[in-house]
Amino acid sequence: MAALTLALDAMGGDNGPSIVIEALARALEQFPQHHFIVVGDDAELAELLAAKKLSNHPRVTVKHASQTVEMTDKPGYSLRAKPDSSMRVALDLVANDEAAACVSAGNTGALMTKAYFALKTLPGVLRPALMSAIPQASGKSAFVLDLGANPVCDSDTLFQFGVMGAVAAREVLGIERPRIALLNMGEEDIKGNDVVKSTAQLFQQSQLLNYIGFIEGDDLFADKADVIVCDGFVGNIALKSCEGLADLLLSNIRSNINAHWLTRWFVKLFYHRLQRSWDWLKPDHYNGASLIGLRGVVIKSHGDANTDAFFSAIQQAVEETQQDLPARIRDRVESVLLEQD
Amino acid sequence: MAALTLALDAMGGDNGPSIVIEALARALEQFPQHHFIVVGDDAELAELLAAKKLSNHPRVTVKHASQTVEMTDKPGYSLRAKPDSSMRVALDLVANDEAAACVSAGNTGALMTKAYFALKTLPGVLRPALMSAIPQASGKSAFVLDLGANPVCDSDTLFQFGVMGAVAAREVLGIERPRIALLNMGEEDIKGNDVVKSTAQLFQQSQLLNYIGFIEGDDLFADKADVIVCDGFVGNIALKSCEGLADLLLSNIRSNINAHWLTRWFVKLFYHRLQRSWDWLKPDHYNGASLIGLRGVVIKSHGDANTDAFFSAIQQAVEETQQDLPARIRDRVESVLLEQD
Repeated sequence: MAALTLALDAMGGDNGPSIVIEALARALEQFPQHHFIVVGDDAELAELLAAKKLSNHPRVTVKHASQTVEMTDKPGYSLRAKPDSSMRVALDLVANDEAAACVSAGNTGALMTKAYFALKTLPGVLRPALMSAIPQASGKSAFVLDLGANPVCDSDTLFQFGVMGAVAAREVLGIERPRIALLNMGEEDIKGNDVVKSTAQLFQQSQLLNYIGFIEGDDLFADKADVIVCDGFVGNIALKSCEGLADLLLSNIRSNINAHWLTRWFVKLFYHRLQRSWDWLKPDHYNGASLIGLRGVVIKSHGDANTDAFFSAIQQAVEETQQDLPARIRDRVESVLLEQD
Repeated sequence: MAALTLALDAMGGDNGPSIVIEALARALEQFPQHHFIVVGDDAELAELLAAKKLSNHPRVTVKHASQTVEMTDKPGYSLRAKPDSSMRVALDLVANDEAAACVSAGNTGALMTKAYFALKTLPGVLRPALMSAIPQASGKSAFVLDLGANPVCDSDTLFQFGVMGAVAAREVLGIERPRIALLNMGEEDIKGNDVVKSTAQLFQQSQLLNYIGFIEGDDLFADKADVIVCDGFVGNIALKSCEGLADLLLSNIRSNINAHWLTRWFVKLFYHRLQRSWDWLKPDHYNGASLIGLRGVVIKSHGDANTDAFFSAIQQAVEETQQDLPARIRDRVESVLLEQD
């Protein structure tokens, strides 16, 4: 396996750089050949690295950045006013080929804007998309995109999301001929809005893709599709609604447990089993989201990512880089564009 | 309490007329003053009523209808080809003032189309909306609309949904000054699409409404708003996604339970407690959805409604009729339109 260099935005998340350094320590063990550039305040990072006995580690470089993007910063503002933010510096390392991928737990809007600005889209790609894996009833995963990078999409853009998602499902999930579905409010052809209907026609016209039709929200987790396509407005609301429901269920189960002495007694055994399932069921908390369609790998970890979550985002970055996902997407988009001509 | 007459579409749901007759039997006890017109195949209904000892019940009338709308019928087709369907006949009873409300577990698209055609919208109301109550962490409920009657909405329509939902929250949920929120992919003003942004401006300009701003999907169940407004495409997908997640969680918990002898032993006590919570958490299965904005009360029960669910839809119909929800909505829409002039 070739040695890779990954850039980590150490200042982005709600929980500060310490969880990034802890995840780094784990990544150095897990990936004994890869290099990591940690971007952020060098004094603070030096201290944290020293505490982990990682000062002068041969595979760790600290890159100083004088600014930090706040969670409340508007994307346009952060782009203009924070050219030396840890997020931007980490992305520029990818843009300048000093790193193969960037991982950040920072402000999503700022990351998308800066990544789009610094890296640009791949040739032929209209828009980057935010994509995440969600669990399926079978135990497998499916990719959903877009999750919020593009609140409004035309049908060409949604069609490309299907193409890009299918490349990712093949390269990352190992599915030979990924089933692509459009998220809609009904399964029949007449359902939905005009954009969804015309996107369906684009999919139906392509011989290169395994398009299976519309699926509804209640089939998001039912293992009917490997790639589920929607605009960022719908995708964001659908997945966050599920997150809200998972929270409600967890608190409801907690009170059910507390309502009976026998269940209270039982709680230690059972509750922790459930909580593990819960983690699995709040995908955007525990998996990174990939910003795909760009000239480089960018993984967004959740704002309140803990060490596990940030480490999992690093793993994703390694995987996508090893598969050279951007190049695979570029090739596939090119083939599909040629097919359309 | 004044005596009401309600029309029940007996043939609509997946489970046939027997659950409707069972729900009717319960409603006759619960509401000793109200009358019910049961619409469907009279031979089949006579047999079911006889089995329940309800033949010649003084408060039950059977109205024959020779056709049945199938779940697979397209709305336009059912409107044209099935003028004597149980659904249409039940709606016509409301249109002709022979009944105050109609309850159906039939094909949602057909019901919306037929109801719109037969009843028309209230003066000033642009579009009817499908509205349902969803549970909140506090144990209270909030109304969400639209859930699929209108895949595409302009901002005037979304604004009116807020007005209508607030009337319903006041009359049905008893909330003096209901908090209205717009479902969006972020809480900041700059987030979302143009329709959501211009709808927010309409709400901000009204002195009559208690508009609280945008909420995100993860706050759907967090008791932040009493009325949550979105277009039918987003609302349908968000709530169905939650339904899909609830199914996944239930099966996941089932396998967690089966994975350990102690939890298996425990299952009888705990699983049934959970299952009750689950029922509560799949609102469209266990509550009816109201089609509001029309000149009459129309309640849609879930296609696979059981007796409990259909009875709950009848209760909702009684409640909305007693509050004269259509007249309250008409008055409020008028006030708001005057305010806008």
